[in-house]
Amino acid sequence: MATETRPLESNLHVDYVIQYRFGDADQTPAIEQLEKLLEALAKVGLQSEVRQGDESSLLVFVRASTKRLKRAIYRSRVRDWLYGIRNAEPEPASSIEPLTEAERLRVISHMITCPQEEGGAAITPNHGDWKNVTAIFPLHDKETNKKWMRQWSRKTLLSNDDLNQIRNKFGESVGFYFSFLQSYFRFLVFPAVFGFSCWFFLGGYSIVYTVVNCLWCIIFVEYWKRQEVDLSCRWQTKGVSAVQTNRREFKPEKEVRDESTGEVRGIYPATKRMQRQVLQIPFALLAAIALGAIIATCFAIEIFISELYNGPFKTYLIFIPTILVSSLVPTMSAVLMSIATRLNDYENYETSDAYDVALTQKVFVINFITSYLPIFLTAFVYVPFASLIVPYLDVFRLTVRPFVSKEHAVSKQSHFQIDPARLRNQVIYFTVTAQIVGFAMETIVPYLKQHALRKYKAFNKARNGKPEPNGGNGDKESPERAPAVSYDDPPEEAKFLARVRNEAELSEYDVTDDLREMCIQFGYLALFSPTWPLVPVSFLINNWVELRSDFFKICMECRRPSPLRSDTIGPWLDSLSFLSWVGSITSAALVYMFSGNAQHGPNGEPTDIKGWALLLTIFFSEHLYLIVRYAVQAAMTRLEPPNSRRERAERYLMRKRYLDSTLRAETGDDDEKDEGLMESPEISRTSLEEDARRASLQGTDSTERFWMRQRGWAESAKVGAGIIQAQPANDNVKKEQ
Amino acid sequence: MATETRPLESNLHVDYVIQYRFGDADQTPAIEQLEKLLEALAKVGLQSEVRQGDESSLLVFVRASTKRLKRAIYRSRVRDWLYGIRNAEPEPASSIEPLTEAERLRVISHMITCPQEEGGAAITPNHGDWKNVTAIFPLHDKETNKKWMRQWSRKTLLSNDDLNQIRNKFGESVGFYFSFLQSYFRFLVFPAVFGFSCWFFLGGYSIVYTVVNCLWCIIFVEYWKRQEVDLSCRWQTKGVSAVQTNRREFKPEKEVRDESTGEVRGIYPATKRMQRQVLQIPFALLAAIALGAIIATCFAIEIFISELYNGPFKTYLIFIPTILVSSLVPTMSAVLMSIATRLNDYENYETSDAYDVALTQKVFVINFITSYLPIFLTAFVYVPFASLIVPYLDVFRLTVRPFVSKEHAVSKQSHFQIDPARLRNQVIYFTVTAQIVGFAMETIVPYLKQHALRKYKAFNKARNGKPEPNGGNGDKESPERAPAVSYDDPPEEAKFLARVRNEAELSEYDVTDDLREMCIQFGYLALFSPTWPLVPVSFLINNWVELRSDFFKICMECRRPSPLRSDTIGPWLDSLSFLSWVGSITSAALVYMFSGNAQHGPNGEPTDIKGWALLLTIFFSEHLYLIVRYAVQAAMTRLEPPNSRRERAERYLMRKRYLDSTLRAETGDDDEKDEGLMESPEISRTSLEEDARRASLQGTDSTERFWMRQRGWAESAKVGAGIIQAQPANDNVKKEQ
Repeated sequence: MATETRPLESNLHVDYVIQYRFGDADQTPAIEQLEKLLEALAKVGLQSEVRQGDESSLLVFVRASTKRLKRAIYRSRVRDWLYGIRNAEPEPASSIEPLTEAERLRVISHMITCPQEEGGAAITPNHGDWKNVTAIFPLHDKETNKKWMRQWSRKTLLSNDDLNQIRNKFGESVGFYFSFLQSYFRFLVFPAVFGFSCWFFLGGYSIVYTVVNCLWCIIFVEYWKRQEVDLSCRWQTKGVSAVQTNRREFKPEKEVRDESTGEVRGIYPATKRMQRQVLQIPFALLAAIALGAIIATCFAIEIFISELYNGPFKTYLIFIPTILVSSLVPTMSAVLMSIATRLNDYENYETSDAYDVALTQKVFVINFITSYLPIFLTAFVYVPFASLIVPYLDVFRLTVRPFVSKEHAVSKQSHFQIDPARLRNQVIYFTVTAQIVGFAMETIVPYLKQHALRKYKAFNKARNGKPEPNGGNGDKESPERAPAVSYDDPPEEAKFLARVRNEAELSEYDVTDDLREMCIQFGYLALFSPTWPLVPVSFLINNWVELRSDFFKICMECRRPSPLRSDTIGPWLDSLSFLSWVGSITSAALVYMFSGNAQHGPNGEPTDIKGWALLLTIFFSEHLYLIVRYAVQAAMTRLEPPNSRRERAERYLMRKRYLDSTLRAETGDDDEKDEGLMESPEISRTSLEEDARRASLQGTDSTERFWMRQRGWAESAKVGAGIIQAQPANDNVKKEQ
Repeated sequence: MATETRPLESNLHVDYVIQYRFGDADQTPAIEQLEKLLEALAKVGLQSEVRQGDESSLLVFVRASTKRLKRAIYRSRVRDWLYGIRNAEPEPASSIEPLTEAERLRVISHMITCPQEEGGAAITPNHGDWKNVTAIFPLHDKETNKKWMRQWSRKTLLSNDDLNQIRNKFGESVGFYFSFLQSYFRFLVFPAVFGFSCWFFLGGYSIVYTVVNCLWCIIFVEYWKRQEVDLSCRWQTKGVSAVQTNRREFKPEKEVRDESTGEVRGIYPATKRMQRQVLQIPFALLAAIALGAIIATCFAIEIFISELYNGPFKTYLIFIPTILVSSLVPTMSAVLMSIATRLNDYENYETSDAYDVALTQKVFVINFITSYLPIFLTAFVYVPFASLIVPYLDVFRLTVRPFVSKEHAVSKQSHFQIDPARLRNQVIYFTVTAQIVGFAMETIVPYLKQHALRKYKAFNKARNGKPEPNGGNGDKESPERAPAVSYDDPPEEAKFLARVRNEAELSEYDVTDDLREMCIQFGYLALFSPTWPLVPVSFLINNWVELRSDFFKICMECRRPSPLRSDTIGPWLDSLSFLSWVGSITSAALVYMFSGNAQHGPNGEPTDIKGWALLLTIFFSEHLYLIVRYAVQAAMTRLEPPNSRRERAERYLMRKRYLDSTLRAETGDDDEKDEGLMESPEISRTSLEEDARRASLQGTDSTERFWMRQRGWAESAKVGAGIIQAQPANDNVKKEQ
């Protein structure tokens, strides 16, 4: 553990690398800006070394001085304590040690980026004065990464310790993702086994499987909520979202001087933002229509070609809709995504958390449509209404007619029959094929591309004999083995610098992409798995690979991410909840509509399906879902997670200690008995005289006279006893007899 | 304000009165116990005076010593601070003052009741050793109460200040109730006006009214949630539920020594409790069946008599079902209530909060059934299915036959027609008549009864010449003007003591009853008001009176309640939310079913109602409701209530001050520049020699060599500038040309 928190030997104790691009700019301002950068770093206690990056960039290596780092950690912990994230007041700065590598890196990153008034160097990559600073990143710990990859490839499950290690290296945000993935994987075992049995014995659309699946979704989501609390207690990040960082892009409407805090703060009225947020409704509609139109059209073409068309080239034409979908949908998604980002910018959020949440919601809308709409169309439009809709596909016949003779063109409509396996095949496509393709696109292809590119460049350079003199274009170039010709590195550093140059070239890692992928995957399970109960089996296998490949991606294909703290997987949790809710509706509908013909899939006789019965099924299923969810939630809140209990006990103990000390301080005082409550004064001449004197002094004050009748508790007791005895108590009389 | 916090002159500075019954017990233990009581009080610093109560009780008057009270308040505030309820650390005990009368009384009550290890007298009324202590209550402030009643009867709305005053007198719990009532009243103005217009122009079952009403319900509930946050910030009770008081009745399964806190604590496993909680399901079913059977039977009898029966005595027989309902339902409710209480006891909650929440849920189930089932039956069973069900009412004809001749007995079935006004009349009954009856039963009747009883007793006593010698029976007796014959009170105290004896006789006030009443009332509005849009008008008038009469009830018919803190109206809030949700379903169904025949009410043609259309209406209505609610919730969380903002600003300020001080302490240190980061050392012979020496010393350590290449930021900047200038930058070359 102790070695973990020190800067790494293999990385020459480098904490962070700052990539400084000077390519396109004038040389003089670039040099001036570099001076400013180095001075700012030095001011906050960061030592720096400059080396050449590629042709148009410098690499500034940064290392924190121990003393300043300790103080920064202390400050960060004091802030945590004040915000209630830590229970105990931190020890003094001099004796502090970073607990984990992630804490160390997080604090240094904060030193580099946070504003000057908070004691940082205020370096904001790609923004404002610091446009030349294109990236700030720590270096990978290659050896440990490799060791872990090797270990995990032999394990079924990661241990809690492994997850702690991930968190210690990459921060809580990445730690939460891997923990989620791990929990999800572990939870998938049950539906995989159960789904396999159901598939084997009952086939698709079995009520038993559907009910169990819905219940499983509820329990998983609620379990994860509880697990989040547990993890955030274990990793001491509970309530960390309270410490919010302001967005630099935030444009306040007016500056207001807060009377209570005495600070000038930018204000943007919430009502105004809400007006802008209303634009989300047309945006969602636009997304639905744009993507819906593409998907529905391609779908219609596909049906036309595969089931109606009989003309020439059918074997080739069948690929048209697939090609159309896979080219048009991503394009449209990208367009919508850019609209969403612009809309989100326009909504002008004050904190980056709020910004991220809002963007995530928009991303979710787009993803929901692209991922699930095709299956929705098949299940709830094609199957029940095909015989009504298909005749309208004549439109395509008109398009086709010029090219082929009429009798060839289309099989007779009476011929038309719904393809009963279509729905199932589509679900299989999305839950197996698409997952594999996604994995390849996400992990393997970039890796190959990156290698190929490096090889090509090295080859090119070797042929040219020396680097191409086009540094001004700023294109990235760094040979794999850093031939000594290109840069005049000191020979002992050459290998290290080559590695850093390679890392600088990589793209940034964004954990939300991975979370989104998992969330969408969960959606297939919740919404459509009754169609094909092997879905969880496929996901179980996929996720075993996914966990490893995501780690591989972070280590090999991305720059090491700056550790971020977090106490949740964020808005994706709401998406999971939402999907499981929608699942209760779609599953019920699927089962009601198709449960009769499990062997062959639905054959779509709309007369079979009674509207009221379908709706009643949905109504009951949904409300049953909500009731069960309520019960599960209630049960979960009562089962306190172990770390949370420990945390609460700690907090309690801290309070109790403090309270005890006040109580003790107080009982110390008590020795001087106050106001003579305890002792009943001896009735002597003096005291009687005193009483009389007091009574005459305060004679007019009826209140004091009331309270002076009995002095001390013993006297009150005597009076009370007198009253009790004066009562002619029947019982006593009897007993005495 | 200052006078408010002092003990009242008119109450002779009495803080609390403890009613001590010795009636049924042996005299000796009663006297011993009294001594113990008085000693315990004196030990915690409470002065006491004993006076006679009625024949079988004593009144122990209690006053807190200033010094001990201050310390108790200090301790309470420290606890609040530790639990995060207060932001600022409290000032020292010596300079502390109770802020409000409620705080003063609350702290004294805590001193009397809390366990010894927390510094209290551990007196637990009606429990364990203290069975003789039957009540602990503060005295009413008659004058202020009267003044307020007079003032409010002339006002339409209570001001914020009035609500603050209520809170200062009666504590936050009562304050929350009145604030809720006030908010509800204020919010009712809109639907009252709108409902009246709709009733006038559109009649019943108008879609416009229904939509507006649902929207209003959402906004009201969400507004109140926000208002709760605001109030709890204003009254400094935010998070007060964190300070939980343990229930004395809690039976731990085992005692566990908590390793971390080192305390022996009673533990009752949550899983075991959950198993017991599952009993709630059969309980809810039992309640539904028992009450449902009674209501449905009476309903059927009523229909039979009023619409089928034509025999003799019809005018009288028509009252039978009403009599049956109003005698059987309360009886059954009471039985169920006692089952619910026993079930709740059995569930063995650790804290009184948890106990109350659980009990409230059960009470809500019973109330839901008794209040809404009759209307449900009319709307969703009688109207659509009457022509199917009515023939089965023949059963009753068999009962009737022996008594009357056959041709008389029943009108021909073909004759039968649904009474179109029945639903509306029923709604009017529940929302107008029942409210008035409820008001009378709750406020006027007890008041009259109480007066009559006192008069009767006084009369009785006057006739007998002296008190009846049956003190052992413990019957309550206290004449209105305390005739000097009965007790030998000092004459100057006689009037005061008579008043206290009267107050001791009164019942306890429970705020949840009043909240329940309002919650049920809200339910009629949310669920059934489309039937008769004048419902909110009736409620508006009713609630104006309700607010005043409830205050009257607290002041005149109940003992003054011990102030309780609270930051919410508790589980009733969930009930409101739930009712408004159910309202979205019932309203939609009502409007769909009956909107055609608004003039005459539904005439129930089941063929008119299409199952699928009804269900689709409900489905859309409900989901629209959920979406709108989500949007309103999102909007509400963004509009921060003013007091909450102030509280946040305060907290922020406190943190900032602390952080600034650490930051300042630190920059003080900075003057000794650490590790030579700032100055670039002059390159002199010495420094070069030094470098060489160092390099040779650490020659093997590549890390140190890496970091020693550039010394100070200025040198790094020079190296960087060198690299930049060395690049053959095309731009620069061009510019220089």
